[in-house]
Amino acid sequence: MTISDIVQKSDTVAGRTFDLLVIVLIIVSVVSFSIETLPDLPPHIQQLLRVIEVVTTLLFTVEYVLRVVTAPRKRDYVLSFYGMVDVLAILPFYLSLGTLDLRILRAIRLLRILRILKLVGYSRAMARFGKAFVRAQYEITLFLFCTLIVIYLAAGGIYFFEHEAQPEHFGSIFHSLWWAAETLTQVGYGDVYPVTTGGKLFTFVVMLCGVGIVAAPAGIIASTLSEVLREERQE
Amino acid sequence: MTISDIVQKSDTVAGRTFDLLVIVLIIVSVVSFSIETLPDLPPHIQQLLRVIEVVTTLLFTVEYVLRVVTAPRKRDYVLSFYGMVDVLAILPFYLSLGTLDLRILRAIRLLRILRILKLVGYSRAMARFGKAFVRAQYEITLFLFCTLIVIYLAAGGIYFFEHEAQPEHFGSIFHSLWWAAETLTQVGYGDVYPVTTGGKLFTFVVMLCGVGIVAAPAGIIASTLSEVLREERQE
Amino acid sequence: MTISDIVQKSDTVAGRTFDLLVIVLIIVSVVSFSIETLPDLPPHIQQLLRVIEVVTTLLFTVEYVLRVVTAPRKRDYVLSFYGMVDVLAILPFYLSLGTLDLRILRAIRLLRILRILKLVGYSRAMARFGKAFVRAQYEITLFLFCTLIVIYLAAGGIYFFEHEAQPEHFGSIFHSLWWAAETLTQVGYGDVYPVTTGGKLFTFVVMLCGVGIVAAPAGIIASTLSEVLREERQE
Amino acid sequence: MTISDIVQKSDTVAGRTFDLLVIVLIIVSVVSFSIETLPDLPPHIQQLLRVIEVVTTLLFTVEYVLRVVTAPRKRDYVLSFYGMVDVLAILPFYLSLGTLDLRILRAIRLLRILRILKLVGYSRAMARFGKAFVRAQYEITLFLFCTLIVIYLAAGGIYFFEHEAQPEHFGSIFHSLWWAAETLTQVGYGDVYPVTTGGKLFTFVVMLCGVGIVAAPAGIIASTLSEVLREERQE
Repeated sequence: MTISDIVQKSDTVAGRTFDLLVIVLIIVSVVSFSIETLPDLPPHIQQLLRVIEVVTTLLFTVEYVLRVVTAPRKRDYVLSFYGMVDVLAILPFYLSLGTLDLRILRAIRLLRILRILKLVGYSRAMARFGKAFVRAQYEITLFLFCTLIVIYLAAGGIYFFEHEAQPEHFGSIFHSLWWAAETLTQVGYGDVYPVTTGGKLFTFVVMLCGVGIVAAPAGIIASTLSEVLREERQE
Repeated sequence: MTISDIVQKSDTVAGRTFDLLVIVLIIVSVVSFSIETLPDLPPHIQQLLRVIEVVTTLLFTVEYVLRVVTAPRKRDYVLSFYGMVDVLAILPFYLSLGTLDLRILRAIRLLRILRILKLVGYSRAMARFGKAFVRAQYEITLFLFCTLIVIYLAAGGIYFFEHEAQPEHFGSIFHSLWWAAETLTQVGYGDVYPVTTGGKLFTFVVMLCGVGIVAAPAGIIASTLSEVLREERQE
Repeated sequence: MTISDIVQKSDTVAGRTFDLLVIVLIIVSVVSFSIETLPDLPPHIQQLLRVIEVVTTLLFTVEYVLRVVTAPRKRDYVLSFYGMVDVLAILPFYLSLGTLDLRILRAIRLLRILRILKLVGYSRAMARFGKAFVRAQYEITLFLFCTLIVIYLAAGGIYFFEHEAQPEHFGSIFHSLWWAAETLTQVGYGDVYPVTTGGKLFTFVVMLCGVGIVAAPAGIIASTLSEVLREERQE
Repeated sequence: MTISDIVQKSDTVAGRTFDLLVIVLIIVSVVSFSIETLPDLPPHIQQLLRVIEVVTTLLFTVEYVLRVVTAPRKRDYVLSFYGMVDVLAILPFYLSLGTLDLRILRAIRLLRILRILKLVGYSRAMARFGKAFVRAQYEITLFLFCTLIVIYLAAGGIYFFEHEAQPEHFGSIFHSLWWAAETLTQVGYGDVYPVTTGGKLFTFVVMLCGVGIVAAPAGIIASTLSEVLREERQE
């Protein structure tokens, strides 16, 4: 058995063990990263978290190097989605060793968690989702597009109804976009809502549109998954 | 290549460039319109936005004239949905040049954003949505109809339960409609909610109806899209 | 043409006109009923609304008598769902002429709006919904049953986590049911929410269950409607 | 007719009566358990509830013994899901007779309500749900997995945007998880929401993801139920 088999394959005991080790490492690193954000940590805990950060990043680096070295097509791996995620998981650490220590850099390390998706398997279900997604990509893009337009029109409309009554919440169309987004996606925090009769009537129409916005992707996913299942059945 | 080809077609370089220019123009005009609503703008910015408004509207007018002139069937274009949107995008400007300067006129200009939909393409996905919509129109109308009846019954019901306990929120059936709409569409801002035991029990039933109201259109869209996909497959 | 044709049929001009008149009458009566609930109405308006109420109810009574008289099977009509709704639309008025004037009686008059459903037509789409509903009745009942059990378990669980921290909101399992219902149906008014860490973790699981509760009926409706459409296609 | 027929079967009058008795007993015990949580109960009611608890538990114990004795394969029954639920329904009572009286023990008794599911029948609809669930288990697991990752990324993201502006609500990634969960599941209590412009823009993206999270299971359930219905039709 070569190192290549261990790193690249998941159907041997050694390969599966390697994957599991990496998963554990990701979870340790993500949990320790989350703990780091807790306020008022005692200094020795902070130091421990820093050590975990250094150790996990070094191990991720070794893993990345192994993956590049053993990849049948190095270039393909490096430029693939997971190849990017793998490098984004370690790059911020090395950049922050220099003078560069932006907050956004630290946030990027969070993306490490995406690496778990590659390692957990469920390849069949994931392939099915992938197929359905490719097949429905134009519908989904069009849906997102329509949603953005509806959100904008809702924001513009509510601005004319409410900005005199509530200038602090509906001060401009940009302010109103926030209300439009939380209403159309049915989240409804309740920090902003119309108070005028006209605004409430307008919101009534917007809420009905919101039902459509939540229903449409469910319909798209359902019909596309049905298609994919039908094809698998016929093969 | 004639002007007609450039304006009416999208499959040539010139036609595609023309469409892209119009899209850029729409976005510029919509963004500048939104910025205009920001409070406390310095005078020179206001003047700049006014200039942008004048220029974009003139360009939209030229475009509209070109579209009418080059349309194979002028009457059909003028009376079509997009023909209406195109004229609504410029009309308010000319009306406001006179003494007429209603707020609603300015709001209509927002509809310009709808013009983007015609220009972005995705004609196949849009045709599919269109077919599904035509096919499900009776179901969707019936659903909207039932939703309005359920909202009314919910408003009438909660009025009897809550109007004594909370006369400021449930002062009449009209006031209660607002609560009914935000509860049945699952938005739930939280500005109005029942406090009596009877009202809460009634709301419980209303919430379960709300699950149905959100689920029904998802089901309608899913089954109709499946039909449309099935037919495309058989062609 | 006999009176029977006018009352019972909808495919003649006279029959359609009769239906339209009844629809207008229902809307007038429902709107006037809603206006009646407005606070601080001047006396002459109140008197006008009372007159409208008397007139519409008398006309509904005439209509009901005509329907019973002209029905091919009188007994079947009287005991049918719409026959019940028709009588519920007028009965409260006559009962309130006596000493009986309960608030619940007045609320029953709201059900008049349901009569519109019978009159608007859309018989084909409604038949399709009806078929899908009959076919999915066991699934829907089971779903409602599971939802009630999940709501109860959620209420019981949150009670143990939160009742010490927030005795005013989670005073007993009965109090907690209100929170469970608004969380699982994703309404989320925000009048009650967990504050303890245990309660929040528990709510996290409850919210994921809520996604399932909203998704399940959409799935049931989609698959049943697809079945009904498939059968219509094969006929 | 033997005791085994009464306990194990549901298609005879005696068997159905036995099931109904157990259902009534479960409802009595669950309701009395809920009443017990009401604050300020007078002592004699508390005593009555205690008596009901003792009596119902003893009857459940007799029922459990009968089920074990009459089961064709005792071991299978004891280790089955419902066998576990049956024993969990009585065990806490006996454990609390000793010194052990943990609150969690009392909460476990709530699970008794799950026993109703076995007894109500609807075996056909339940079998259909069961089949659909087994068939979609990988998709559902993958969906839950992705949801957890998205929730984590949303929490991490909002932490960077909001923790300086609102340290009391977004004090760490752990605090932010609560916000992420209620936003992505569209519950939106409104106890926590972003206030910075960056945070609102980020939330906008998160809300659109939330639409997908609510839509995906609806699509999975719809397509799988369609498959199961299709197979039943072909049998």
